[in-house]
Amino acid sequence: MENKRLILVTNDDSILSKGFTAAIEVARHFGEVVAIAPETVQSGMSQAITMYSPLFLRKVREEAGVTVYGFTGTPVDCVKMAFDHLLRDRKIDLVISGINHGSNAAVNVLYSGTMGAAIEGSFYGCPSVGLSLTDHGEDADFEASILWGKRIIADLVHRIDEIELPLCLNVNVPVGRPEQIRGMRLCRQNKGYWREEFFHHEDPRGRDYYWLTGEFINREPEAEDTDERALAEMYVSVVPVQVDLTDYGQLEKLGNILK
Amino acid sequence: MENKRLILVTNDDSILSKGFTAAIEVARHFGEVVAIAPETVQSGMSQAITMYSPLFLRKVREEAGVTVYGFTGTPVDCVKMAFDHLLRDRKIDLVISGINHGSNAAVNVLYSGTMGAAIEGSFYGCPSVGLSLTDHGEDADFEASILWGKRIIADLVHRIDEIELPLCLNVNVPVGRPEQIRGMRLCRQNKGYWREEFFHHEDPRGRDYYWLTGEFINREPEAEDTDERALAEMYVSVVPVQVDLTDYGQLEKLGNILK
Repeated sequence: MENKRLILVTNDDSILSKGFTAAIEVARHFGEVVAIAPETVQSGMSQAITMYSPLFLRKVREEAGVTVYGFTGTPVDCVKMAFDHLLRDRKIDLVISGINHGSNAAVNVLYSGTMGAAIEGSFYGCPSVGLSLTDHGEDADFEASILWGKRIIADLVHRIDEIELPLCLNVNVPVGRPEQIRGMRLCRQNKGYWREEFFHHEDPRGRDYYWLTGEFINREPEAEDTDERALAEMYVSVVPVQVDLTDYGQLEKLGNILK
Repeated sequence: MENKRLILVTNDDSILSKGFTAAIEVARHFGEVVAIAPETVQSGMSQAITMYSPLFLRKVREEAGVTVYGFTGTPVDCVKMAFDHLLRDRKIDLVISGINHGSNAAVNVLYSGTMGAAIEGSFYGCPSVGLSLTDHGEDADFEASILWGKRIIADLVHRIDEIELPLCLNVNVPVGRPEQIRGMRLCRQNKGYWREEFFHHEDPRGRDYYWLTGEFINREPEAEDTDERALAEMYVSVVPVQVDLTDYGQLEKLGNILK
């Protein structure tokens, strides 16, 4: 038997979400699992950290090879808590974040708490995979995403010594039964953005309130190498994610403008 | 007189912060100002959006050429509220986010609510500038950062037609009096990360709590072209920011590993 790996699982839909349970199912296939997720829903929390409040940690359950914690912070706080406190004296081999209820393709990678946590994992020199299913529903069918999660992670784990770090993958699985998924595609992040339509009403006390709701604008529906395109064609999309936000093209051009 | 520009100002330290007032001072130099910031401190909120709560908007004050709103959402929510609701029928010429109390150089760009808002502004096709001062203090001295903010934005505005969009700048100003700042440098984002030391105590009810506190590890102190280096040498650092997180290098390499 090979050495037991240690896998950190996290999530942004809280310890109560079906997707968190699904990610633990993927992870336990590869080793011992420590899972830590927010106590409440933290969708859309991006790479947020909690600077001005104390945080509370709770062991939710412990069973053979799986220990689950709830934490009152953000998804990134969960990752920091795991690496810098809970598992400080152990080596974490892999971070799995998800399985998210909803797509993190295209620009969603920037708003996503799931991907925020996966990116954070990669900062600790650990291969990190964010898994998402393009279905927001609480009762989404995770069967295909569990299957593809296991398949992709098996490939990574199998050739872990050849992988150059940092490595962070943004994996999205289209809605469908396993037999409807046509395969996997390595692709780039689609260029697109959200336009919002604030839902605007009066609350029971007569105060106006706004509620964010929006529409995704795909600026390049014709491009064949994007994650959005892969998903539209029923492929699992895999985008490697980096965190150097420097726009090197602009760096050249701005030399003439800013003196 | 040239046509009146419309400048959107936002911030992550709240409408009550000194830095928000400083950013309004920079902006009013260039046109009419609409300023909207969170009602409470939102430092470290990254690109977070509020999906599961209603939000409340309030006009705080209106004076010659400056209208100020408080919003109960995140910095990114503020930008969305401005573009998609408040100023929906007008053309915004420039977004200024800040002036942040604290550095947003290096990897801080990913955690920063100030930069989250600036990036969001660039999604609306508008040149966006995040301004930060490397001093967390509530009473920080913003004189040099106001001066450099005006200088950099004057350069942009002067040659606005030559600028390729999207444009988002991460501008950081070192602590010092104006005469101590040696100039401005276009640079790239430093590669570094934070390691956390959770402050761990018991609350008055006997519950353990954790409070995030950390240390920045500069992985390349010798590199001469980074923002951290510019700041250490008393230069204002300017990093153009992009939002395509695709790691194209890994995209090539992973072709052999993920099949």
